[in-house]
Amino acid sequence: MLDERLQRAAEAVKSVGCDWAILTNFDSICYALGHVPSIETAISPFAGGPTTAFVRADGVCGLIAPNVESAAAQASRADEKIIYEGFAYDHRADIVGNYTAAIEQMKARLGIGGVFGAEPETLPARLAASLGADQTVDITEPLRRARSTKTAEEKELMERAATAAARGQQAFYEWARPGRTELDVFAQIRAAMENFAGERMAVAGDFLSGKERTAGGVGWPISRVINLNDPLISDLAPRVSGYWGDSCASSVLGTPQDGYLKLFSTAKRALDRALEIMRPGILAADLDAELRRSVGAAGYAYPHHSGHSIGASVHEWPRLTPYERAPLQEGMFIMVEPAAYDPDIGGVRLEWMIEITATGCRPAAPFEHYASIAA
Amino acid sequence: MLDERLQRAAEAVKSVGCDWAILTNFDSICYALGHVPSIETAISPFAGGPTTAFVRADGVCGLIAPNVESAAAQASRADEKIIYEGFAYDHRADIVGNYTAAIEQMKARLGIGGVFGAEPETLPARLAASLGADQTVDITEPLRRARSTKTAEEKELMERAATAAARGQQAFYEWARPGRTELDVFAQIRAAMENFAGERMAVAGDFLSGKERTAGGVGWPISRVINLNDPLISDLAPRVSGYWGDSCASSVLGTPQDGYLKLFSTAKRALDRALEIMRPGILAADLDAELRRSVGAAGYAYPHHSGHSIGASVHEWPRLTPYERAPLQEGMFIMVEPAAYDPDIGGVRLEWMIEITATGCRPAAPFEHYASIAA
Repeated sequence: MLDERLQRAAEAVKSVGCDWAILTNFDSICYALGHVPSIETAISPFAGGPTTAFVRADGVCGLIAPNVESAAAQASRADEKIIYEGFAYDHRADIVGNYTAAIEQMKARLGIGGVFGAEPETLPARLAASLGADQTVDITEPLRRARSTKTAEEKELMERAATAAARGQQAFYEWARPGRTELDVFAQIRAAMENFAGERMAVAGDFLSGKERTAGGVGWPISRVINLNDPLISDLAPRVSGYWGDSCASSVLGTPQDGYLKLFSTAKRALDRALEIMRPGILAADLDAELRRSVGAAGYAYPHHSGHSIGASVHEWPRLTPYERAPLQEGMFIMVEPAAYDPDIGGVRLEWMIEITATGCRPAAPFEHYASIAA
Repeated sequence: MLDERLQRAAEAVKSVGCDWAILTNFDSICYALGHVPSIETAISPFAGGPTTAFVRADGVCGLIAPNVESAAAQASRADEKIIYEGFAYDHRADIVGNYTAAIEQMKARLGIGGVFGAEPETLPARLAASLGADQTVDITEPLRRARSTKTAEEKELMERAATAAARGQQAFYEWARPGRTELDVFAQIRAAMENFAGERMAVAGDFLSGKERTAGGVGWPISRVINLNDPLISDLAPRVSGYWGDSCASSVLGTPQDGYLKLFSTAKRALDRALEIMRPGILAADLDAELRRSVGAAGYAYPHHSGHSIGASVHEWPRLTPYERAPLQEGMFIMVEPAAYDPDIGGVRLEWMIEITATGCRPAAPFEHYASIAA
C-alpha cells in the first residue's frame, strides 16, 4: 500500500493534468519519498545537481541521490533508487556527468515522459533540458495544499518534533544564567534537543537577550553576555527526522518589572484565546484578527504574522495573516505566536504548535511558559 | 579598486569568452561578492529562486536577494543590490513574481546580455529562460581555479576560520568526559567556536566515540554515551563569515593501549612528513602518494583522500588524491588528513589546515594533538 503522503503527492500531480512530477526541493522529497538527508551545510560539493525525485500520477516513484546521501536514500520509500558517485578519492569522479547519467537511467527504468509538473524555483535548466521539459506545470500550489493536513504517520513525526522543541525550552529555563552568552545557552538547548532525538539537527529560530534585542523580536544568538533581569526570547525550530518542530518562550532572568508582566500576560491571554477558538472551519484571517484584537486591547501590536503551518517545511501553507482566507481543517498543525513588544521594556512572544482536531484543537507537546527564571 | 576576488571572478568570466556570469551557488556568491547569508536551514520558503549574482567581465556586479537576507546583502560588495520581498505578513507576497521582477530590473539596470557563463548544477530553468540563456558556458572550472590560491583578504578569513577550528579542538579536549554523550560534547565544541567567532555557524565534520565508530572514520555525533578509554575522533569544519575552517583531532579518553599509540604515531608521522615537504611545485598526487607511503610503512591505509583545498567551500580544488596532477601553489590553503584505522582498536585521523608559502608551508592556526585526554 502506498504511503499516504506519496499518494497525496501523486494525486496532486494528477490534479493538474501531469503524468510525472519532478521534485527538486529537499522538503518536497522528504514529504513524498521520506528521503531525509542532512541540510545543514547546504549544497554539497559532491553533488552534480539537486537530489531529484520523480513521482508518477499513480504513485510509482524514483530517487536520484549522490553517494554522500546513500544511507538516507536507502531508508526512503522510493521504488527505484539510483545512487550516483559524487564522492570518490581513488579516481576523478565526473560528478555532473554521473548525475546526468543517473537521470537518463531513471528515465529509461521508469519510462518517464509526457507532461511534467515541476518546482520552478529549484528545477535546474540542465535537468529541464534533458527531460525535454521546457514547458512544465508548476505544482508548487497543489503540493502545498496536499501537505496542509497531516497524515497519521506525519502526526507522530510532528509530535516528536514538537516534543524536541518543548525539551529545548526546558533546557532554556535550566541553562539561562547571568554571565553566560546567548551562544552558550543556545548550545545547551541544542544539545538537549539533539540528545532527545538522538541525532544532529538543523535548528532555525531566534535567541535574544536584553531589552533592545528582545524588543526587535528576531535574530540568531550572538556572544552577548546575559545579565541579571534581562528579558529573553527563545524561539526554537528543530528539524527532527525531516519534520520541523517550533515554539517560542519568553522570560526574564531574575525579577520582572510590572511593564514586562503586562507584556507577558498580553501575549499569554492571546495564546489562551487561540486555544479556545481554534477548530475546523475558522478562517486563518479571522484567527489572525482575533489574536491582533486581543493584543491590541492591551495597547500592543506585533509586526509579523500571527502564525503559520508547519511540517516538512518550517513554514507551510496556510499562514495566519490578514489576507489568508483558508479555513483551518482537522489534521493541520498550526504555529500560533502572538507577541507584545515595547522598546522601553523588551519583547515577549509565546508560540505553541497546535493540532486542529475534529472539534477543536490541542497542543502538540506540553509547552510551558514562565514569566521569570530564578537567577 | 575592485576587491581581488571580484577581479579574479571577472577574469574567469572573460577567460572563457563570456560577457556576464550568472552565479547561483552560495559559495561562488560569497567569494565574488562577499554576500554571506546563513545556509543552515537550506532553501528558504521566503525565496522565489536562488540568491543570484551577475558579474560582468570588467567586474561590475549585481546581487538579487530576498528580504530575509537583507542584512547580508547590504554588507556585500555588490555595485547594485535588489532586495525583493519574500517575507511579508500584511499582504500576500508574490514571492516568485518578485524574484523574477528583480531579475528583470537588474537586467535593465546593468544592461545584462550577451554570452552568459553559468553554474549548471544550480541554474534554474526559469532564470535561464528569462535571460534567453539556453546556451550558457559552464564557468565552474575556471572559477574553481581562480579560487584555488587565496587573496590577502581571504588569508585573514582563512586564519580566523582555522583558529575557530583550533578553539573547537581545545573545547574537545576540555569537555570530553566519560558519561557525556557525543552530542553533549559536540554542543560545547560548537559553543566554543561560535563564541570565538561571535556568530552562529554551520558546522560540517564528524564526531565519533568507541572502537567501532572511530574505525569507521565518518559520521555525525549521536546520543552514544562516551566511556572511559574510548578512542575519539573530532573532525570540525566551522563556517566563519562565509569561509570554512577544518581540522581533525583524535585521542583516547583515559589510557591508550599500545595498539592505539601505534595508530596515533603513524598518523602523526605522516602529518609531520607533509609539513616537511609541502611547498610550491609539489604535485597533489605526489603529496598524496607520500602520505599513503608513510602510513603504509606502518601497515595501515585509509579509504579516503589525503586532503583537499578549502575556502568559501569546505572542499575546493585541488584535492590530495592519486589522480590530481595539479602542483601546489603559494597562497593555497590545503587540508592534510592522514589516518590509520584498525577495526580491533579504532581510528586515528589527524588533520591540519596548511598554508602554502613562497618557500614551504605553515599551519593556518596552532593545532595541537594529544594521544590521550585525562578522564
